[in-house]
Amino acid sequence: MSEQKATNVTWHEGLVSREDRYNILRQKGATIWFTGLSGSGKSTIAVALEKALFERDKLSYRLDGDNVRLGINKNLGFSAEDRKENIRRIGELARVFGDAGIIVLSSFISPYKLDRDRVRQLHEAEHLNFIEVFVDCPLDEAERRDPRGLYRKARSGEIKNFTGIDAPYEVPVNPQLHLQTNMLSVEEEVDAILEYLEKNEILAAPCSVCVDDKGGKEAVSI
Amino acid sequence: MSEQKATNVTWHEGLVSREDRYNILRQKGATIWFTGLSGSGKSTIAVALEKALFERDKLSYRLDGDNVRLGINKNLGFSAEDRKENIRRIGELARVFGDAGIIVLSSFISPYKLDRDRVRQLHEAEHLNFIEVFVDCPLDEAERRDPRGLYRKARSGEIKNFTGIDAPYEVPVNPQLHLQTNMLSVEEEVDAILEYLEKNEILAAPCSVCVDDKGGKEAVSI
Repeated sequence: MSEQKATNVTWHEGLVSREDRYNILRQKGATIWFTGLSGSGKSTIAVALEKALFERDKLSYRLDGDNVRLGINKNLGFSAEDRKENIRRIGELARVFGDAGIIVLSSFISPYKLDRDRVRQLHEAEHLNFIEVFVDCPLDEAERRDPRGLYRKARSGEIKNFTGIDAPYEVPVNPQLHLQTNMLSVEEEVDAILEYLEKNEILAAPCSVCVDDKGGKEAVSI
Repeated sequence: MSEQKATNVTWHEGLVSREDRYNILRQKGATIWFTGLSGSGKSTIAVALEKALFERDKLSYRLDGDNVRLGINKNLGFSAEDRKENIRRIGELARVFGDAGIIVLSSFISPYKLDRDRVRQLHEAEHLNFIEVFVDCPLDEAERRDPRGLYRKARSGEIKNFTGIDAPYEVPVNPQLHLQTNMLSVEEEVDAILEYLEKNEILAAPCSVCVDDKGGKEAVSI
């Protein structure tokens, strides 16, 4: 004997596929997962990339503390358990956004390799693009910037378990992109990501729609 | 003294607005919230509507047990508390999808008025369209259909707390659309929703882009 289960957990096969959605958008869904220290520049790059994508008529959406910590994760605290659940839900959120066809720009410190790898697996199990971008800023530089005065508070002991000070940041082992922020301008960082997206055909519709283009090109070459 | 807080809960004002996203998509974000008994036809209508929207080049995304109960809500059970949290998270998910510009088709029994009203408030507080669609099928008809044999199990006591049998369904008081499924075909139901979306200008870009169209129309009328 059991409680009522959700009655629609069985699969309702739709009549519109992920490829159909990609074709409407003339792009492919993807998650760009920025990871790095507080103050490393994750959100700054995400904001600039969002604008660059918009200028190319591409639909992206930023996930950050504003719309996640204050929304779907509102009831989570900052215990080890809650932090793990925070990243898990963000990963699931990114996954459904990617399935919908959107390019997700996710900016969270996400200091643990295991948590990031879980989000990657979630995407790859469904053949969704997952692009880990290591926003690599030396600790002393991030601390010098300290845009919100958080490092100062962490050093004084006012904040505990602060990533880089008294909590670890596990460096990505094999990120798709490694941006050394003290050697690149924001513009160069955005260009590097755009180049990656172009190279991996994320800024184009799936091939069923490209046939016309190919046909056109072939016709020209004849 | 406190634990580290998410460092990016402050607002990162972006350079791309919700209207910009609506313009890329030439539609406005919205949540179409289907509510009704198990077997009332919520998912069937959602699947047909998704197809009709796709044929109009509009981007929609279905939220149902598949991608929610198995994903972001995976760690929720079926206690009263968990059911409430289930609907809360779905509401938050719909809200960010709407903000991204997508037309969300959400199919859950969602039997409690209070839970549905909370989701509505969440949307309206951010000026997002929330369209409650009451999929109204008489209990005896839903039970006769019983596509997954769940009513039979509920009657035999094999399933407890089943909506309509031994758990309440609170009828929507003021839904945007009230579909009486025993009087309408799925096609007619879809048409009724499309008409509502057209009338409320959800299938058009915001007016900054419509200027050309209006200009064109005016030119014709001259």
